[in-house]
Amino acid sequence: MPLKKSWVVSANDADHPFPLNNLPYGVFSTEGSDPRCGVAIGDMILDVTSAEVEGLITLSDEPLFDLPFWNPLMEEGPAVWAALRNRLTDLLAESSEARGDIEPMLVAQDDAEMHMPFAVSEYTDFYAGRNHAQNVGTMFRGAENALPPNWLHIPIGYNGRASSVVVSGTNIRRPWGQLKAPDQDHPAFLPSRRFDIELEMGAIVGTPSDGPVTVQEADDNIFGYVLLNDWSARDIQAWEYQPLGPFQAKATATSISPWIVTKAALEPFRCDTPAREFELLDHLKDCGPMLYDINLSVTMAPEGKDATTIARTNYNQMYYSAAQQLAHHSTSGCPMNTGDLLGSGTISGPTKPERGSLLELSWGGKEPLTLDSGETRSFIEDGDVLTLTGAAKGKGYTIGFGDCVGSVLPALENPYAR
Amino acid sequence: MPLKKSWVVSANDADHPFPLNNLPYGVFSTEGSDPRCGVAIGDMILDVTSAEVEGLITLSDEPLFDLPFWNPLMEEGPAVWAALRNRLTDLLAESSEARGDIEPMLVAQDDAEMHMPFAVSEYTDFYAGRNHAQNVGTMFRGAENALPPNWLHIPIGYNGRASSVVVSGTNIRRPWGQLKAPDQDHPAFLPSRRFDIELEMGAIVGTPSDGPVTVQEADDNIFGYVLLNDWSARDIQAWEYQPLGPFQAKATATSISPWIVTKAALEPFRCDTPAREFELLDHLKDCGPMLYDINLSVTMAPEGKDATTIARTNYNQMYYSAAQQLAHHSTSGCPMNTGDLLGSGTISGPTKPERGSLLELSWGGKEPLTLDSGETRSFIEDGDVLTLTGAAKGKGYTIGFGDCVGSVLPALENPYAR
Repeated sequence: MPLKKSWVVSANDADHPFPLNNLPYGVFSTEGSDPRCGVAIGDMILDVTSAEVEGLITLSDEPLFDLPFWNPLMEEGPAVWAALRNRLTDLLAESSEARGDIEPMLVAQDDAEMHMPFAVSEYTDFYAGRNHAQNVGTMFRGAENALPPNWLHIPIGYNGRASSVVVSGTNIRRPWGQLKAPDQDHPAFLPSRRFDIELEMGAIVGTPSDGPVTVQEADDNIFGYVLLNDWSARDIQAWEYQPLGPFQAKATATSISPWIVTKAALEPFRCDTPAREFELLDHLKDCGPMLYDINLSVTMAPEGKDATTIARTNYNQMYYSAAQQLAHHSTSGCPMNTGDLLGSGTISGPTKPERGSLLELSWGGKEPLTLDSGETRSFIEDGDVLTLTGAAKGKGYTIGFGDCVGSVLPALENPYAR
Repeated sequence: MPLKKSWVVSANDADHPFPLNNLPYGVFSTEGSDPRCGVAIGDMILDVTSAEVEGLITLSDEPLFDLPFWNPLMEEGPAVWAALRNRLTDLLAESSEARGDIEPMLVAQDDAEMHMPFAVSEYTDFYAGRNHAQNVGTMFRGAENALPPNWLHIPIGYNGRASSVVVSGTNIRRPWGQLKAPDQDHPAFLPSRRFDIELEMGAIVGTPSDGPVTVQEADDNIFGYVLLNDWSARDIQAWEYQPLGPFQAKATATSISPWIVTKAALEPFRCDTPAREFELLDHLKDCGPMLYDINLSVTMAPEGKDATTIARTNYNQMYYSAAQQLAHHSTSGCPMNTGDLLGSGTISGPTKPERGSLLELSWGGKEPLTLDSGETRSFIEDGDVLTLTGAAKGKGYTIGFGDCVGSVLPALENPYAR
């Protein structure tokens, strides 16, 4: 599929993240206005809430865009998702006759503040990247026992905290927590000293389910994808995670990119999961290419300094697709709802510069990174700005996600003073 | 505090679970009517939604009871919680002059169907009963290593699945899942064979917070308590839970009792946590008696047969209070919201008949229970009805919770046929 041309000229650049082929969904506000639904096109945002009010988008008897999140559309299901995408494509295509009506509803992205694009119902985080699991397992248990026995049979996941999910641009406060240094007998309550990122993709459930779903049904139920940074306090995690898994180490914040890139926009980039070491059980078997070829990178910028790219990898490195994760999530009968967010797990490639966390990049702090500024890092320092980027490259066009950015603020002096 | 007498005569029995001292909050419907808010008094339910419409309860300019859950009241905070309790006490007291107005708004509990009393925002389950942790740890790791090193320093918890929380009376379908028998090399996808209960109390967050809260603040933020049965598929859990904790094993269902017993009703039953083996860090220290003396029991009834009491214990057996759990939950900055539900963890006393799960009662299946019917049980069989009960005993009165009941249905023949 080639670049589709738009009358919004900035959208026609081969490297622009938001061509007509993309049409990602977000929630934005401009000075003095309330947050509303919008779709990115080139450097602009089309105000979808206004377009619906003006009768240029009519998908349902009830308004779909009068609330500042995309859940009402997601609840409508795949036929309405497709109808909206077709309508937006018609309105914004080079040949559109509606340009005169639509142009007044465009806002420059530079003038907009982005908000959470959807209300997160529940948040689940997986551990489904093999290189990451292998790296972390090797550090903690040795190379021989790196992968837990279940890892090649099920996408291991745990429930995260939906209330902690924030949109890109939200500052992240270094957490306090209970941690125990290896040379101490007892734990102490301190600011985290090993605060980290995890480079992930997030899949958003559009269609709810109330019982086990197949991998194909799970894929059908997914609405779209975002970049996701699962901020992780490694020292809090090390002390708390046995026997019931990560808890406060992962509850400070999870950042997502501001634009939901729809499954439809990603169709041309589908690719296969890797060869299986053990055949998966029937209910988890691949039923087509369900990963995506999306280039991902992470940059780190010390406060006031230039950013250094510290990792480059690709979403095609996952062992399990989001559809397989969602299918597994439903096996017990667990009801899945519109707005559920599934983190892929940290995405790391096979070589050192492809690792999606500082824990792996600095090998637990033993091999600090050197940034372009000359500074070194094992984990995040106060003031550092961490940015995830993602882009799928088509023939003559790009599907971008919008950066997922967070600046780390110093821990509170006294967390109980408010 | 003695029994407060009500003109609803059934409420004045010393053993009745719903005297004027209790006034628990639920959501009910009668034939042909929509669910609405109600308060239990004796054998009756006062229709609070109607009482507000009729102007007999006026706490706010906006209606608080026009939705079928108690979250809007919870959001109002402790002053309004107290005002409602005072008003209901006045309306229902023996001396009330409003009896003529109120009596037509009473519905017999026998004629009512109960619904979820509140919308669960997020659900967290803890592991804070020492006897339970000791028992399970002994079975899995031996008596010497039973308690994980962190256990006496933090209330270990994990995020559960809010979408799986159901009200008492909801049938529970035995789940399928991936499990691996010890004598098998590979896992299989099968119905759970070791399906179990966990006897817990649930604490409901009323007032939200957005940063670390002290134990006292956490206690202030709690609205009330329910009984909670954390249905658990032990065989799914055993295979999946390393390294990131329980996931699908706990996602089939979590049942709660239909009535929220307010913190105010439980005030006379406050009691201390046990002596500490290690002094807790400052931010988790007790700041007064924050457990409650509540007798708890579990009965099991094979299909069509009489129930056998299989466990009796008390909420005062917990090592950590709900307030300490909530304080710990907030340490990382995790936002806590109205409607968050915190499971206490399984409550077991020190002796065998005080154990709150079949895993402990049958010691992993090695010591099956004999029921009054003569049948034996290691875990739940299809058709079994499991019932949790709870009651705090005052001088001349009882604070009951309403049973928390679930019947276990056979697994689906094919979970992918719908």
